[in-house]
Amino acid sequence: MRALVLDPEPLVRNDYPDPKPGAGESLIRVRMAGICGTDLELARGYMNYRGIPGHEFVGEVAGGAGAMPLGRRIVGEINAACGRCHFCLANLGRHCPNRTVLGILGRNGAFAEYLTLPDRNLVELPDSIPDELGVFVEPIAAAYEIFEQVHLGRNERILILGDGRLGALVGLVLWAEGYDPLIGGHHAEKLDLLTALSLKTELQQHLRPGFDTVIDCTGKANGLQRAIELVRPRGRIILKSTAAVSSELNLAPLVINEISVVGSRCGRFAPAVEALASGKLDPRPLISALYPLAEAPAAFAAAGDSENFKVLLKIE
Amino acid sequence: MRALVLDPEPLVRNDYPDPKPGAGESLIRVRMAGICGTDLELARGYMNYRGIPGHEFVGEVAGGAGAMPLGRRIVGEINAACGRCHFCLANLGRHCPNRTVLGILGRNGAFAEYLTLPDRNLVELPDSIPDELGVFVEPIAAAYEIFEQVHLGRNERILILGDGRLGALVGLVLWAEGYDPLIGGHHAEKLDLLTALSLKTELQQHLRPGFDTVIDCTGKANGLQRAIELVRPRGRIILKSTAAVSSELNLAPLVINEISVVGSRCGRFAPAVEALASGKLDPRPLISALYPLAEAPAAFAAAGDSENFKVLLKIE
Repeated sequence: MRALVLDPEPLVRNDYPDPKPGAGESLIRVRMAGICGTDLELARGYMNYRGIPGHEFVGEVAGGAGAMPLGRRIVGEINAACGRCHFCLANLGRHCPNRTVLGILGRNGAFAEYLTLPDRNLVELPDSIPDELGVFVEPIAAAYEIFEQVHLGRNERILILGDGRLGALVGLVLWAEGYDPLIGGHHAEKLDLLTALSLKTELQQHLRPGFDTVIDCTGKANGLQRAIELVRPRGRIILKSTAAVSSELNLAPLVINEISVVGSRCGRFAPAVEALASGKLDPRPLISALYPLAEAPAAFAAAGDSENFKVLLKIE
Repeated sequence: MRALVLDPEPLVRNDYPDPKPGAGESLIRVRMAGICGTDLELARGYMNYRGIPGHEFVGEVAGGAGAMPLGRRIVGEINAACGRCHFCLANLGRHCPNRTVLGILGRNGAFAEYLTLPDRNLVELPDSIPDELGVFVEPIAAAYEIFEQVHLGRNERILILGDGRLGALVGLVLWAEGYDPLIGGHHAEKLDLLTALSLKTELQQHLRPGFDTVIDCTGKANGLQRAIELVRPRGRIILKSTAAVSSELNLAPLVINEISVVGSRCGRFAPAVEALASGKLDPRPLISALYPLAEAPAAFAAAGDSENFKVLLKIE
């Protein structure tokens, strides 16, 4: 099959072996996939990943154990958990220590014609959600994860740090849920687009400290340091950025100001599918470009261009 | 008066000007004081502090506004707040942006014959609490602060990282409140003493990951990194260490494992005074040495010796 392979440079291969579903797994034909900041970090060496990246996708069932009918359009939760450990039994398979993670850890991902996932990871996609909307289910679920972890007060002053893909999606999700966050970023043109989507925005250099909650979506190792500067004493930072590199960090203000930091990663798919199906959330204006899989390296380059939001791959 | 002055090296001066209490302040004759890890960090350049350090003390009222009778034995909360700002009105003067902090920020401290503090900072010390116990009120209040910030479950596996002064006090406070934490440290002799005080202990190299809550009391900039290694996914880290230096930190595990970090600093004095008065908590076995103020530099050296717990100064 055709696939994009990280070795660690992104390279398209046309002779990659088709995956074979294991017990309890389905074979999925990928229809469309989204490039995420994590994919770019993997190409920079994050997680020492070798293989096919990609974890945001819409596909259709093409074979396997048969829990879903052939041809059914699906999205898939990316953590393939053991189902037996302490975390799995607590419904926290996303933290299963034995897990593989689609396109990130021990399991080939979605930038290919086919992938495999456990049947229990598959979530049917309603007809009302077209492919180019369905590829947003995974990152939107990651945004909804915030609500599973903390209680955001209705009157909180919320800052989203970073005007990239993730910051924009977190902003749209918070707005859809009735909050009015401020998005702080470095790119005037991107902030203009977000303003046109009803979001409040501000150039980073104009931000003043005192936010109740700062959500770091910078994707940069130094994002936490900047968040510490901008949050009020006793405030809260939600850390969404994963970066390949370490960062020099002065933690004293975190202790002196008794700040809380909450690491936040993947979320359940159900709230994301519901939000997209209801129409209260439509991130399609964030699509900057659509490339065929054969041009995936160019798509990676476009996704790494700070002028772009979301770059999609069409798998044909 | 006689005083220990950081410039930044610790130096005893016998001609330091007596402090004059401002409006609403009392003049306090210091009776006894304790040396804390923060004092050692100040001497290493933390906060760029110049002046008299010391914030753990027992004194007696010697003049001033007269809210308390002369001669009354007291301890004093260390944050001198403005009383008018948003934080002060929310009873969080410890986070007042206009505050001075005794012996740490803009206000001379307790390693001297006299100090001044606002009347509202003074807390009467019951006769049942002798000076060498009363000097522990401030750090014990800092340990009780944990209960003001988070809910510790009765069955949590709690690790206290660091077998120094702060780790030992946090351990004794948690034990007094019905918890059974494990203290992990590098010093077998100190761990033996803590074991004799009924605490569970373990050498750091024998610790295995999986704790629900890790309380970093290492006082080291890399304490957070070690805590991240030892806490379970979705677990909690309470950060008590303040260090003068920055540290290289890889934050990806914090996001991947959705760990929470809570910075924790000073606490209210009332719970600490109550605990000491009730007898359920007696940290006096942690006293390693008592020096006169004239020998304060030697006392600083002793406090910096990792074999020692608490070093006190007697002010005569």
